[in-house]
Amino acid sequence: MVFLTRHEHFNAAHKVYNPRWSEAKNVEVFGKCANANWHGHNYTLYITVKGQPVADTGFVVNLSALSDLVRAKVINQVDHKNLNLDVPFMLGKMTSTEVLAVAIWDEIEQAIKDMGCALHCIKVQETDNNYVEY
Amino acid sequence: MVFLTRHEHFNAAHKVYNPRWSEAKNVEVFGKCANANWHGHNYTLYITVKGQPVADTGFVVNLSALSDLVRAKVINQVDHKNLNLDVPFMLGKMTSTEVLAVAIWDEIEQAIKDMGCALHCIKVQETDNNYVEY
Amino acid sequence: MVFLTRHEHFNAAHKVYNPRWSEAKNVEVFGKCANANWHGHNYTLYITVKGQPVADTGFVVNLSALSDLVRAKVINQVDHKNLNLDVPFMLGKMTSTEVLAVAIWDEIEQAIKDMGCALHCIKVQETDNNYVEY
Amino acid sequence: MVFLTRHEHFNAAHKVYNPRWSEAKNVEVFGKCANANWHGHNYTLYITVKGQPVADTGFVVNLSALSDLVRAKVINQVDHKNLNLDVPFMLGKMTSTEVLAVAIWDEIEQAIKDMGCALHCIKVQETDNNYVEY
Amino acid sequence: MVFLTRHEHFNAAHKVYNPRWSEAKNVEVFGKCANANWHGHNYTLYITVKGQPVADTGFVVNLSALSDLVRAKVINQVDHKNLNLDVPFMLGKMTSTEVLAVAIWDEIEQAIKDMGCALHCIKVQETDNNYVEY
Amino acid sequence: MVFLTRHEHFNAAHKVYNPRWSEAKNVEVFGKCANANWHGHNYTLYITVKGQPVADTGFVVNLSALSDLVRAKVINQVDHKNLNLDVPFMLGKMTSTEVLAVAIWDEIEQAIKDMGCALHCIKVQETDNNYVEY
Repeated sequence: MVFLTRHEHFNAAHKVYNPRWSEAKNVEVFGKCANANWHGHNYTLYITVKGQPVADTGFVVNLSALSDLVRAKVINQVDHKNLNLDVPFMLGKMTSTEVLAVAIWDEIEQAIKDMGCALHCIKVQETDNNYVEY
Repeated sequence: MVFLTRHEHFNAAHKVYNPRWSEAKNVEVFGKCANANWHGHNYTLYITVKGQPVADTGFVVNLSALSDLVRAKVINQVDHKNLNLDVPFMLGKMTSTEVLAVAIWDEIEQAIKDMGCALHCIKVQETDNNYVEY
Repeated sequence: MVFLTRHEHFNAAHKVYNPRWSEAKNVEVFGKCANANWHGHNYTLYITVKGQPVADTGFVVNLSALSDLVRAKVINQVDHKNLNLDVPFMLGKMTSTEVLAVAIWDEIEQAIKDMGCALHCIKVQETDNNYVEY
Repeated sequence: MVFLTRHEHFNAAHKVYNPRWSEAKNVEVFGKCANANWHGHNYTLYITVKGQPVADTGFVVNLSALSDLVRAKVINQVDHKNLNLDVPFMLGKMTSTEVLAVAIWDEIEQAIKDMGCALHCIKVQETDNNYVEY
Repeated sequence: MVFLTRHEHFNAAHKVYNPRWSEAKNVEVFGKCANANWHGHNYTLYITVKGQPVADTGFVVNLSALSDLVRAKVINQVDHKNLNLDVPFMLGKMTSTEVLAVAIWDEIEQAIKDMGCALHCIKVQETDNNYVEY
Repeated sequence: MVFLTRHEHFNAAHKVYNPRWSEAKNVEVFGKCANANWHGHNYTLYITVKGQPVADTGFVVNLSALSDLVRAKVINQVDHKNLNLDVPFMLGKMTSTEVLAVAIWDEIEQAIKDMGCALHCIKVQETDNNYVEY
C-alpha cells in the first residue's frame, strides 16, 4: 500500500464562539479566538490517499486530477472566505480545526473513492504551532 | 555595525478594499481579497535593529526587552484582531502589507531609539508567497 | 477519532556518553556527541493527543490548557538546562533522543488522560536531520 | 516501540513517460512531466526504522551507521543522476515518486534488518507540494 | 521606499559543464554536477521590486500582475525544462545559479519598469544549501 | 555584482554570563541563558560572498571550495563543542550571537579574499526566533 499526500493553501477569517453561550462565557473559554470582529489564518490542507500504483503510470492517482478535485470541492469554498459565514459545509458548525477537518473529509471522501483510491487522512494546519489529523 | 532580527507572529482578519470605490471596482482590482465578510492570515513580523554590541553583555539590544516592546506596541494591537476595524494605528488606512509595514515602523521607531539602537527594517510576511520590507 | 498535535521548543545542553564505559569506548561509539564539555540543540517537542471533538467547543482538548500542562511538566524542566545534570526525570539515563521521548511520555501520559483525551505520540526533533517518535 | 527517522537529500533529473505509449498519449497523461529533454528535482528521502532502544547506548540504531548505509545503497546511486538512465535499481521502471519509494525500500530493507531493527517507512518528497510514503 | 518580494517555483534539469573543456577537466572542476545524463533541482525564484505604495490601493505593485508577468516571461520558459537545451535565454551560457540569476534579471527588468516600479533583486535558490542574489 | 550564500550547521553548548559580574547580576540580565550547567543550540551559519561570475565556470566562487574552507576554519572549531570553553577564537569573549558573528567574520575574511572574491555578510541564526548579521 502506497500513501500519497498533496497539500493546498487557503486564507480565511473565522472566530471560535458558541452562539448558545453568553459573550462572557465565550471569552472565558475561547479567549481572543472569540474576537467579535473575527481574526484569520493561512491554513494548509494535506490530503493523504492510499492505493496501489497503476502499472501504466506508476501513479496511485494523478496528482493534477486530485488537485483539481480538492480545489473544486474545498479550496474554492474556503479561500479568502469567512468560515463562519461564507462556507456552505460549515454553516451551523463550530469552526475549530477539528470540526473543519472532519467536514472536509465528508466533502471529498466519495469523490476520492470514485478516482480509484481511498482517502486516508485529512490534516489541517491552522498555525505553525498546531495541526489536526482525521 | 551588527544587525539583529527578531520575529513575532500574529493572526488577523482583514479585507483589501477602497471605500471610495464601487464594489465592482474593488472586485476588479482586489479580486477575492475584497471579500465582504473578510479573510485572514498568519502574519510574521520581523524587526531588524542595528548597533554596536555592548561590551558587558555582547548584545546590541536585550532580546527580551525588544520582544516585550514589540508585543506591547504592536502584537497586542493586531493579534486575533480585524486590521480594518480593531487596530487604532490602521484606522482609515488600506490594509495592504505595504501600508501595514510602514505603520508598524511608525509605531516603534522612537521606542527602539530609546533602547540605544536604531530600527533598520520592518518585514511583514502575509503568506508563504510574498513579503514586504520597509 | 481526531488527532491534535501541538509543538513546543526548548534549548538544552547534553552529551551522549555511558559512564560505565572508558572514555575511549565512548568516543569510539558516540564520536563528537561525547564531547566532555557538552554540546547542545534546539529541540522541538510535538505532543499528539486523540479523542472526539466536544460538541460545545469543537475541541478535542483546549490547546491553551494542553500548552500550560506541557510547559509546567516538561518545558520548564528542560529549557535552557543541561539534560544530563539538571533534569530530574533524566537523571541516571542516557540522553539520547529515544530515551528522552520515552521519559517525556511518562511525565505527561496520566495528566493528558485527566484532561479527557489520550496521549498518542511524543515526537522529539533534535536536529533538522533526525527525529524520534514514541 | 520507538520510531527513528533520518532524512537525506539528492538532486536528480527524470521524466515521467511510458515507452509503450505514443508521445501524444504521454503528453496527454503526464503533461510537462514528460518533457523529452528531462526536468529535475531536489528530492528528500526520509527513512523511518523502529525498535527498542539498546540499554548501553539509548539508541534504536546508530544514526551514523544508518546514514552510511543509506548513502552507500541509495544516495550514491541517485544523487546528481538521471533516474531513467543512470540508476540500476530503476531501470525499466516508471520514475514516479511512488515507484521510486518502493524501489528504495527493496534496496535497504534487508540491510536495516541486519542492523538489528526494522524498516518502517520510506517517504520520498519530490516537491514542496507532494510526497509519497511506503 | 518599500520593497516587495514574490517567489515562484520551477523544476528543471541541467548540467554544469564547459563545452570548451575536456570531459576530464569538467569532472575535475564541476564534479558530479557535470554528469552527462543531467541532474535537476526544485528552483525557487524570488523577485524583489521597490517603489512607493499607491494611495488608492496601498500596493507598490499588483501582486497578481507581477506574478503573471514572471510566469509568462520566466517560469513558462524554465519549468519542467532542461536549462541547457530548452531555454532560449540560456542558450550558449553556463547554467550556474549565478548566470541564471543575471539572465532572469535581463528578461524582466524593463517589464517591471513598465509596471511603475523598479526591479531590486533576483534571488535564485538551487538547493537548501545555497542561493544567489543579483 | 553577484552575491552567493552558503549555509552550514553546527550544534554547540554555551552560556551567556559576564565573569566580572555577580551571579545575581548575571541572572538578572541574562535570565535562564546564564544557567550554570550550560544550555545549547542548533546554530545555522550563512556566509555571503560577492564578486563577478568567472566566464569559464559561471561561478563567483567554487561552492565546494568555499564549504571546505568554512568547515576547516569554523565548523570544525565549534560543532559539538562548548563555545565558552572549547573554541580558541571565542576564549575570553561573551558568547552572544552578535560577538560570535563578528569573530567568525575575522576568522575567514582574509581566506575568502584569497579565493578571489569578498566576504559580504556573516549571518548566525541561534534559534528560529532571532538571527544576527554582520
